[in-house]
Amino acid sequence: MRIDRARLAESMEALGKIGETPRGGLSRVALTDDDRRGRDLLVRWMKEAGLAVTIDQMGNIFAVRSGTEARPPVFMGSHADSVPSGGKYDGQLGVLCALEVLRTLNDGRTPTRHPVGMIVFTNEEGARFQPAMIASGVMAGKIPLEDAYNARDRDGLRLGDELARIGYLGSEPCVPRPMRAYLELHIEQGPILEEERIPLGIVEGIVAISWSRVTFHGVQDHAGPTPMRVRHDALVAAAEVVAGVRAISRKIRGNFVATVGRLDVTPNIPNAIPGRVGLSVDLRDPQEANLDRALPMLDQVVRAAAKREGVRAEIEHYWRVPRTPFHPDVVGAIEEAAATLGCGHRRILSGAGHDAQYMAAICPTGMIFVPSRGGRSHCEEEWTSLDDIEHGANALLLACARLAGA
Amino acid sequence: MRIDRARLAESMEALGKIGETPRGGLSRVALTDDDRRGRDLLVRWMKEAGLAVTIDQMGNIFAVRSGTEARPPVFMGSHADSVPSGGKYDGQLGVLCALEVLRTLNDGRTPTRHPVGMIVFTNEEGARFQPAMIASGVMAGKIPLEDAYNARDRDGLRLGDELARIGYLGSEPCVPRPMRAYLELHIEQGPILEEERIPLGIVEGIVAISWSRVTFHGVQDHAGPTPMRVRHDALVAAAEVVAGVRAISRKIRGNFVATVGRLDVTPNIPNAIPGRVGLSVDLRDPQEANLDRALPMLDQVVRAAAKREGVRAEIEHYWRVPRTPFHPDVVGAIEEAAATLGCGHRRILSGAGHDAQYMAAICPTGMIFVPSRGGRSHCEEEWTSLDDIEHGANALLLACARLAGA
Repeated sequence: MRIDRARLAESMEALGKIGETPRGGLSRVALTDDDRRGRDLLVRWMKEAGLAVTIDQMGNIFAVRSGTEARPPVFMGSHADSVPSGGKYDGQLGVLCALEVLRTLNDGRTPTRHPVGMIVFTNEEGARFQPAMIASGVMAGKIPLEDAYNARDRDGLRLGDELARIGYLGSEPCVPRPMRAYLELHIEQGPILEEERIPLGIVEGIVAISWSRVTFHGVQDHAGPTPMRVRHDALVAAAEVVAGVRAISRKIRGNFVATVGRLDVTPNIPNAIPGRVGLSVDLRDPQEANLDRALPMLDQVVRAAAKREGVRAEIEHYWRVPRTPFHPDVVGAIEEAAATLGCGHRRILSGAGHDAQYMAAICPTGMIFVPSRGGRSHCEEEWTSLDDIEHGANALLLACARLAGA
Repeated sequence: MRIDRARLAESMEALGKIGETPRGGLSRVALTDDDRRGRDLLVRWMKEAGLAVTIDQMGNIFAVRSGTEARPPVFMGSHADSVPSGGKYDGQLGVLCALEVLRTLNDGRTPTRHPVGMIVFTNEEGARFQPAMIASGVMAGKIPLEDAYNARDRDGLRLGDELARIGYLGSEPCVPRPMRAYLELHIEQGPILEEERIPLGIVEGIVAISWSRVTFHGVQDHAGPTPMRVRHDALVAAAEVVAGVRAISRKIRGNFVATVGRLDVTPNIPNAIPGRVGLSVDLRDPQEANLDRALPMLDQVVRAAAKREGVRAEIEHYWRVPRTPFHPDVVGAIEEAAATLGCGHRRILSGAGHDAQYMAAICPTGMIFVPSRGGRSHCEEEWTSLDDIEHGANALLLACARLAGA
């Protein structure tokens, strides 16, 4: 039993047209019109495959193929939203490989004891509404539904309103349900598989992640007649934090990574001293203890910068996901699938967050990684060869069939 | 002969309502609908005062009161656009004091040998379209008309198109015309007059100004699985420039000021390493030589930051206005007016650019400063007392009457 490589490639091509950028990347940000168009196409394909489609209160799409027994289903899944100027593999690939597995089971009329299904998660990226993985977070009971609905984008639009606007505010409760397992195929988004020329990564778990928000309130004033001696420039303080976050990464070393990805200046014109600057800090490490060391360092950097420039600082550590180990049943099933395929593989840890992180709190969970060219992702240059995708999708098929009792 | 304080206050109140912010400031950015509404009100008042109103190719509004002889007019003026979240004094005050002078000449049926008029300049702030003072720059022949028309805002809208859209694309040539003098009243935007408790500043000239644009091109990537060792983060390089610009100001000292006022991150989300960052650098000094020293230092800071982070840098020094001394005739006329009023005054240099800077290339030019509370401007807290405004407006009236041969 093997997936249909040509059919999978064709689906990737078709879905990748929706929100395609001029340079061949993807801008299909959560709950935009393009997200709706992408979802509509996926739902059409699901129905054509004879799957039972439902939408939950967070807009997550479920599509299920019946099993021969009344048992909890095995789910595969990922997300269909992208970052702005992102690529065509992050999220979309996992969704389409899941669909391809279901189509392949149909092709062979393969019965499974457990039902097999797929989930398309809402707003995994967190590019428009924070935090990321908000819909699996609600499903796992880690984020209150009302908080998720009240998340606002930069224009002040509410997630709940935007879900309704694009027609994906479903009625199924977004709560944990009985599941045999959850499997997610994803691109690695790092350089290891490519560097070691191994096509398949068997993910053991996901690193711990912390997100903070820092705001400096300085004194907005004219850039010309305001002497240097009286300035309180919010951007000067913020720049010190950008440098300080980099310095923290040099102190902790190892696999620790630290990023200021977002920085917003007010009023942001050449001839005004910045009165307010907000910035994000993303910290990750395989060991919780290293985040526990890094966060007080960050507080210290922010306080020192504020003091030096005479500005007021606010800091909020608003999101933390602990290190998530995956389930031995699922990791083992993927390893057996790789062995059956005779395909090179290694165990690997994920540096990126995924919906699988929250799903691990609901049911036995695991992930399959395929290589990312140059380790690049969240950019238009994101790319994975079709050979590698085929290996990954077949591993997903075999692991899923094993867990579902094919 | 004195201006009507109550009438001036009433006009300030009425015009200040158009684009007023909830916190009592002003957001009337150039060529927006609010700018149009502000212009419409000014034109109505000009016509009610019996002035001959014309609009030139850059949307500058001219309003002229006849003289008794066919001589070149004396013009007063300023601008009616504001920065976003700016105040109600920068620009608007100079325009309304000019109008009040013309109304006062009408009240007394005071004949002048030279015609007396006022100019409302387009897009002085440069908040929406760069460079600042673009319309007086075109008038003085320093900026080609086509370049000005092709200036684009952040949404890609053309200045020329926006002028037409709001109905202020006039047909009068925007070229130097014979003028007896140009006078501009403005808030100081610095702390000196307030600190020294002097109500009137007689401006001797404007500092030299340089604007640069720096862009770093790094490698956009995922903030999680991308190890620190392979990163090329455009924001880390940009932060080094923000700190470096501050360091340059500490080296040059004196009256030198240096500001990074604008900084734009792409894609600007918490979990992507910034792939591109653009920033503005505004440098000013009363001495040209100090800008000549500072610019190579800036180049050096940018090169060093790009090298350290392994990113590509572009730097463009795209606008420079030399130090502008004002004309002894006009400076003298204002000093005599201050003496007549018996009002405290001192000579002062402007740290901010003004349309007067370009007008000085066309005709004898001078400026009057009134105090700014706390030296604050380009912010909602901008404020000047009505007593100080009255002194300034009367000085403008008497200096203008003297130059026009009342």
